[in-house]
Amino acid sequence: MKYSVILGNLGNTCDRFLSSGYKNNLPTEEMFRQAVSIEGVEGIELVGSWDITAKNVVSMGKLLLDHNIKLVSIIPDHFGQAVWGRGAFTSRDPKVRKQAVDVTKEMIDILDELGGELINIWPGQDGYDYPFQGNFDEANSWLVEGIKECADYKPDVKIALEYKPKEPRNFSYLARSSDTLLTALETGCENVGVTIDVGHAFVGGENVSESIYRLMKAGKLYHMHFNDNYKSWDDDMIVGSIHTVEFVEILYWLEKTGYDGWYSMDQYPYREDGRDALNESIQWLDALRSRMEIYGLEKIEELIKAGSATDIVRELRRLILS
Amino acid sequence: MKYSVILGNLGNTCDRFLSSGYKNNLPTEEMFRQAVSIEGVEGIELVGSWDITAKNVVSMGKLLLDHNIKLVSIIPDHFGQAVWGRGAFTSRDPKVRKQAVDVTKEMIDILDELGGELINIWPGQDGYDYPFQGNFDEANSWLVEGIKECADYKPDVKIALEYKPKEPRNFSYLARSSDTLLTALETGCENVGVTIDVGHAFVGGENVSESIYRLMKAGKLYHMHFNDNYKSWDDDMIVGSIHTVEFVEILYWLEKTGYDGWYSMDQYPYREDGRDALNESIQWLDALRSRMEIYGLEKIEELIKAGSATDIVRELRRLILS
Amino acid sequence: MKYSVILGNLGNTCDRFLSSGYKNNLPTEEMFRQAVSIEGVEGIELVGSWDITAKNVVSMGKLLLDHNIKLVSIIPDHFGQAVWGRGAFTSRDPKVRKQAVDVTKEMIDILDELGGELINIWPGQDGYDYPFQGNFDEANSWLVEGIKECADYKPDVKIALEYKPKEPRNFSYLARSSDTLLTALETGCENVGVTIDVGHAFVGGENVSESIYRLMKAGKLYHMHFNDNYKSWDDDMIVGSIHTVEFVEILYWLEKTGYDGWYSMDQYPYREDGRDALNESIQWLDALRSRMEIYGLEKIEELIKAGSATDIVRELRRLILS
Amino acid sequence: MKYSVILGNLGNTCDRFLSSGYKNNLPTEEMFRQAVSIEGVEGIELVGSWDITAKNVVSMGKLLLDHNIKLVSIIPDHFGQAVWGRGAFTSRDPKVRKQAVDVTKEMIDILDELGGELINIWPGQDGYDYPFQGNFDEANSWLVEGIKECADYKPDVKIALEYKPKEPRNFSYLARSSDTLLTALETGCENVGVTIDVGHAFVGGENVSESIYRLMKAGKLYHMHFNDNYKSWDDDMIVGSIHTVEFVEILYWLEKTGYDGWYSMDQYPYREDGRDALNESIQWLDALRSRMEIYGLEKIEELIKAGSATDIVRELRRLILS
Repeated sequence: MKYSVILGNLGNTCDRFLSSGYKNNLPTEEMFRQAVSIEGVEGIELVGSWDITAKNVVSMGKLLLDHNIKLVSIIPDHFGQAVWGRGAFTSRDPKVRKQAVDVTKEMIDILDELGGELINIWPGQDGYDYPFQGNFDEANSWLVEGIKECADYKPDVKIALEYKPKEPRNFSYLARSSDTLLTALETGCENVGVTIDVGHAFVGGENVSESIYRLMKAGKLYHMHFNDNYKSWDDDMIVGSIHTVEFVEILYWLEKTGYDGWYSMDQYPYREDGRDALNESIQWLDALRSRMEIYGLEKIEELIKAGSATDIVRELRRLILS
Repeated sequence: MKYSVILGNLGNTCDRFLSSGYKNNLPTEEMFRQAVSIEGVEGIELVGSWDITAKNVVSMGKLLLDHNIKLVSIIPDHFGQAVWGRGAFTSRDPKVRKQAVDVTKEMIDILDELGGELINIWPGQDGYDYPFQGNFDEANSWLVEGIKECADYKPDVKIALEYKPKEPRNFSYLARSSDTLLTALETGCENVGVTIDVGHAFVGGENVSESIYRLMKAGKLYHMHFNDNYKSWDDDMIVGSIHTVEFVEILYWLEKTGYDGWYSMDQYPYREDGRDALNESIQWLDALRSRMEIYGLEKIEELIKAGSATDIVRELRRLILS
Repeated sequence: MKYSVILGNLGNTCDRFLSSGYKNNLPTEEMFRQAVSIEGVEGIELVGSWDITAKNVVSMGKLLLDHNIKLVSIIPDHFGQAVWGRGAFTSRDPKVRKQAVDVTKEMIDILDELGGELINIWPGQDGYDYPFQGNFDEANSWLVEGIKECADYKPDVKIALEYKPKEPRNFSYLARSSDTLLTALETGCENVGVTIDVGHAFVGGENVSESIYRLMKAGKLYHMHFNDNYKSWDDDMIVGSIHTVEFVEILYWLEKTGYDGWYSMDQYPYREDGRDALNESIQWLDALRSRMEIYGLEKIEELIKAGSATDIVRELRRLILS
Repeated sequence: MKYSVILGNLGNTCDRFLSSGYKNNLPTEEMFRQAVSIEGVEGIELVGSWDITAKNVVSMGKLLLDHNIKLVSIIPDHFGQAVWGRGAFTSRDPKVRKQAVDVTKEMIDILDELGGELINIWPGQDGYDYPFQGNFDEANSWLVEGIKECADYKPDVKIALEYKPKEPRNFSYLARSSDTLLTALETGCENVGVTIDVGHAFVGGENVSESIYRLMKAGKLYHMHFNDNYKSWDDDMIVGSIHTVEFVEILYWLEKTGYDGWYSMDQYPYREDGRDALNESIQWLDALRSRMEIYGLEKIEELIKAGSATDIVRELRRLILS
């Protein structure tokens, strides 16, 4: 399994109560150094404007080279500046919508230059908060058009749409796996796919494995973001801190469907050391993967085919504990 | 707005603690009489095996005729008999899968004979409960094949797939609007569409209006079931008992998108008189519809276009209260 | 750890869609035989009217004796008959309220006769469904008075109040650990305590361990019911089928606070063999308990004192996996 | 009804994605001017360190006097500075715990000086995030001791404890009404009570009206914060934007139990004009209050006594719509 992390996971954290930050700001180079020191990490994701801009492309390229790290994705910043406050691709202001596309094209160029693998679009501010605030017809057109324009810019660059049901908006336009797949298909672009963030899917009430199956079947699962939560909110916790069996199921279906993309960490370690938190996530994933392989994928396949809950529970106990 | 009710809503109710029933069993004719006595009710939905079988087609036809009631739908029983316990269309037993299709064909014939409008398939037992119990690849094929076979049987009969995230299974294969739309499209059948049950959509975390928009845009919104709940479970309560503003939004988008189907009540009045409960639901819908029209649909359209939350809240207060 | 099961867990299951049952009805003796055949089971809980009545006290006493099984509790039936439909202790009908108390007294006498340990009151129908349906002032008085009368009947018999946020009512009067503790204290009776059902606590959004701590601190944790769920509904699943780490935390705090009561299984194996399901739950609890002891309770105590999330996650991985 | 607002509601807003703010920072005087321009607002709540410090006591006192505004509460800052990141009253660092108490005493002195009514303690950072991170025994002692020390400092100053189940911690020590009441009682201080934030109670799964009843019965409901949400997260939206019937129930029980405290707005208008948002909340509350009085509190009391859901729904429709 190829592991990567989002660079910002190593940085400072904040929330609406403590906007100055729970920890300390770290220079990009320090975050980079910490990220690549995590055992198993071979790739990095960068957030536009936060981590990567036209101004630091060269130095970032050098960092990647020096550390022999793959640029897995660039996540354009469509959510972290006041201009996006009421929407980026779906802003009622056509200038903002254009800017959302231009920013993405800029990041596509940078990705190209740095030899990166995909553009991960998380349109966090594209949604609505109140009843009657969702202008679904217009918003859907704008979203599809905008993404299409980005995808057509350089058709050999993969665009992965990352969904999330809620936060920062009360309702996001790309909320769950199926509506995001529908939107990807609606663009008509072959290079538009989907990113599953495990925590986002949990909050959305999905069985992540079923989403993996559906997206892989459609040939549209481009990327995975890993974290854990209590299922009701995007707590962005360490993988394996809450769920165990369900992560085995996720690893199984990624393997079974032939997912060959990255296993990227997307966590928000509010009060924890970022490096240590990400390290523990990868350790848990490695450990569960190892247990799964020792147990045997064919045996798991038989359990699934038979569908006996008591057998499954017993065998998962064996898989995990011995 | 054309109102209908599901006949069984007038009947006895039970749950896993009180399986003998909270109220009294009522004969079909009595339930029918009560249903059609509700002001505004012009149509009825019947559940196969519970309300309608080959044996009472004639007498049911007479009831419909005598009371001048439209048969809106037949809901085949794919959920209420032990044979369906571990799945109907997605049972691991091919004989059960075949039976699910045969039962549907039987109901299609009866619908035809009685001049009904659509078959409403709610595959309640098609899902899974435990991790590793979902055999997604097989189940998806079986589900699509089974529905296709039903739809192809008489292509001029509409088949509406009703989704629900949970209950009786912990995960349903047809969970939300988008995955159900994807399944409907996957059948390749022009006569397969979707039923939105408002309560099911609430539980699924959807903004019902957005689902209405998406399904109407795809030309696939065949039917609506109305009830209310606290958003975390399918409480099947009286419409308007909890939510007000969101029902106005739902009525608006049904109107705006040109939905011309039925507004059917699907409630489970555990302890309430069924007739009274359904009556209150229709009264609330009528009242909100009336307020909406008095306020003016064009004014609402402007509010949506502008997207100002404070304006929206103020105007909704005016719409509702004056 | 002393394990017990609720006899009915071995019986037939149903829900509001399949009220005739997913499985088969089993005679009491057969359920009893299966229950006691589960490795580790030393005790049984009986539900009044379902499992134990004045009529079968003698034969039940014989079963208990012959199998050397302890009667852990009697759960009076305050929820499974139409008379309780709109409340038992909090029914607006004073005759029903009296009956709720009388039924409890009857069960207290039977418990006495059979040498049982406690009366577990789960007032499932005591609550409300709709806004303005909760007559909080009256209901609270009636509930406290009723429980007090039961508790004062034979003050050396322990009465454990089992809470559950929801189902069958939309809101239960005894919803979570703290309000139930407040009610227990309000009775002024020394023999009134609380039962934590892990699944009910999960649904209530509680951290079960914190509830254990609070109730043990108050000297009021009388009993534990074990099951698992996805946190949003009382799925009544096999222990360990979803959660792992949180069950270790529960076992730890039960040990640390000196809980010396029963570890009772309260599951509803809708489609699974009841005996096998309960067996797997006990196997999981035993296995996690064993891992915890091997790891060392003092080491866990240090982790808790220090409060470092990354250390905790790493160490829990070691505890569980090796 | 006496309305107040929290001054910061008029200020800038942010979240973890857009920490620089969705809107613009406003000077304290401007926020104050806007707040008091809202029709119905007679009081203000100030947050320590954000709005009120030893340095601006005099100028704030002048503002209050000039605008004839009552200082309803001071909310000490126990959540918005990095020092509180891992807890304030329950920090594992005794120096931080002492600081939490000292800060509160400082605010008590300022409240005294400015003639304010109560200290509203919202210990937002007092909680835990991961399993095994909650050191319940120590934390409970520290919390009770700390609050007691604050309350004993000037026993004629009311200390209201505001609960919230989650955010910024995954679990808060003061989560819901009953555990907060228990903590208040545990201090043994007569001047320690509870603040219900409607949105926090919604998220906690409470029926707010039942919490109002319980706390008023105990003589411990000191304060109310109003906002609305979709029930699954503290969306901090405009009152009446989502719920209607439930706010009537809340207003009814506040009236019936004789609550004579403030109706304070605590909202977080991320993208809305703060003044307008708060104004709409007060307008909704006024309107519902008016409808309720026109309908008649005695008629409502009869509905509650009778408990008929269908009657209740019908009458609430009349109350709201005519």
